[in-house]
Amino acid sequence: MGLFITMEGPDGSGKSLQMDLLEQDLEQRGFDIVRTREPGGTRISERIRDLLLDPECAEMDARTEALLYAAARAQHTAERIRPALEAGRIVLCDRFTDSSLVYQGIGRGLGVEEVAAFNHFATGGLAPDLTILLQIDYEEGLRRKNRQYDGHLDRMELQQNDFHHKVHDGFAVLQRLYPERIRMVDGSDSPEEVHKHIMEIVEPLLSGVGMTTDKDERRCRI
Amino acid sequence: MGLFITMEGPDGSGKSLQMDLLEQDLEQRGFDIVRTREPGGTRISERIRDLLLDPECAEMDARTEALLYAAARAQHTAERIRPALEAGRIVLCDRFTDSSLVYQGIGRGLGVEEVAAFNHFATGGLAPDLTILLQIDYEEGLRRKNRQYDGHLDRMELQQNDFHHKVHDGFAVLQRLYPERIRMVDGSDSPEEVHKHIMEIVEPLLSGVGMTTDKDERRCRI
Repeated sequence: MGLFITMEGPDGSGKSLQMDLLEQDLEQRGFDIVRTREPGGTRISERIRDLLLDPECAEMDARTEALLYAAARAQHTAERIRPALEAGRIVLCDRFTDSSLVYQGIGRGLGVEEVAAFNHFATGGLAPDLTILLQIDYEEGLRRKNRQYDGHLDRMELQQNDFHHKVHDGFAVLQRLYPERIRMVDGSDSPEEVHKHIMEIVEPLLSGVGMTTDKDERRCRI
Repeated sequence: MGLFITMEGPDGSGKSLQMDLLEQDLEQRGFDIVRTREPGGTRISERIRDLLLDPECAEMDARTEALLYAAARAQHTAERIRPALEAGRIVLCDRFTDSSLVYQGIGRGLGVEEVAAFNHFATGGLAPDLTILLQIDYEEGLRRKNRQYDGHLDRMELQQNDFHHKVHDGFAVLQRLYPERIRMVDGSDSPEEVHKHIMEIVEPLLSGVGMTTDKDERRCRI
């Protein structure tokens, strides 16, 4: 089996940039990387993503939303993540089940346990080996996101402040539930500092993970 | 609360025609009817339906399929079925949770209990007052469906014979689990005979259900 690393955090916490830096760093060391994101990652999951993020679907029920995220995740897990892990690769995924537990379970008030139950079904019980949680002050996160898209936000980003507050607190709650798997990183530092912190957490997990070429020779240098 | 009646059965069992006859009959008696179908029934659910039945989505994972049906059902229940029942109307629905228990739980082998759990979440626990199960010999059902669509079948209808066999047997298993709610009707009789049989089952439930006009006067005639 390869290594399954997910990146979580509120909107604007810098996940995409940190995913770029992590991917580049690991590729330079010769690791075989699959970089992916949720919702999405496969043709069918991207079609579900279009529906989930369409600002015209304002009437979407919270339960529909939660089940659509799980449906997209089921396809992503079966078609892309599991085969890559079975081939010994490192999978870097922008958001996974934790986002559903926080956004739908806590943010929408559907309940963490209920949302966890059908996500367990969706993934066949697959959980990340490591989850990097980027924490950031929630107003700062929204400011960053607004600057980035010049005000063009998707249906999830357009939720009221109260929702984003719950999500922000929810990630901290989740981290306390799974302190070994979910490692919190302060996203308000400079991107280089944040990346350095992430690599300190990732490094110890890299021994024994497959590389693109000359596996046996290169592995001993990690 | 109104009255929630669902129609179930394998493809080609004659559900649509029997839904037409039941709707017409109840409307002629002055009942206020909402006729709907699954997957679908709302704008968002119809978009999920397009994805589910698209023959190009051949790579769809069984878990994805099961969760998409539940997502469509959640929206349909919240936006259309519950409000109609709360307004005292009769809701006639072509397929509901039972189809998922049979097609995904039994047909796909995902397990009835697992599929039931997230469908309970999807519907908030809403179950039909009555389910009419049209039974038909399974080869005869497929022959009827093929004639009807001149061979143009959707993704679900294109499944192998083995799947349709399991579905056929699955409906009978489900009926034995819920003998009071699910009433089996032989779909191989003439349409008029089948309708007559269905009305004998529906009649006793009609007292006390709201009508379009002159409710109090007309109710006593039922």
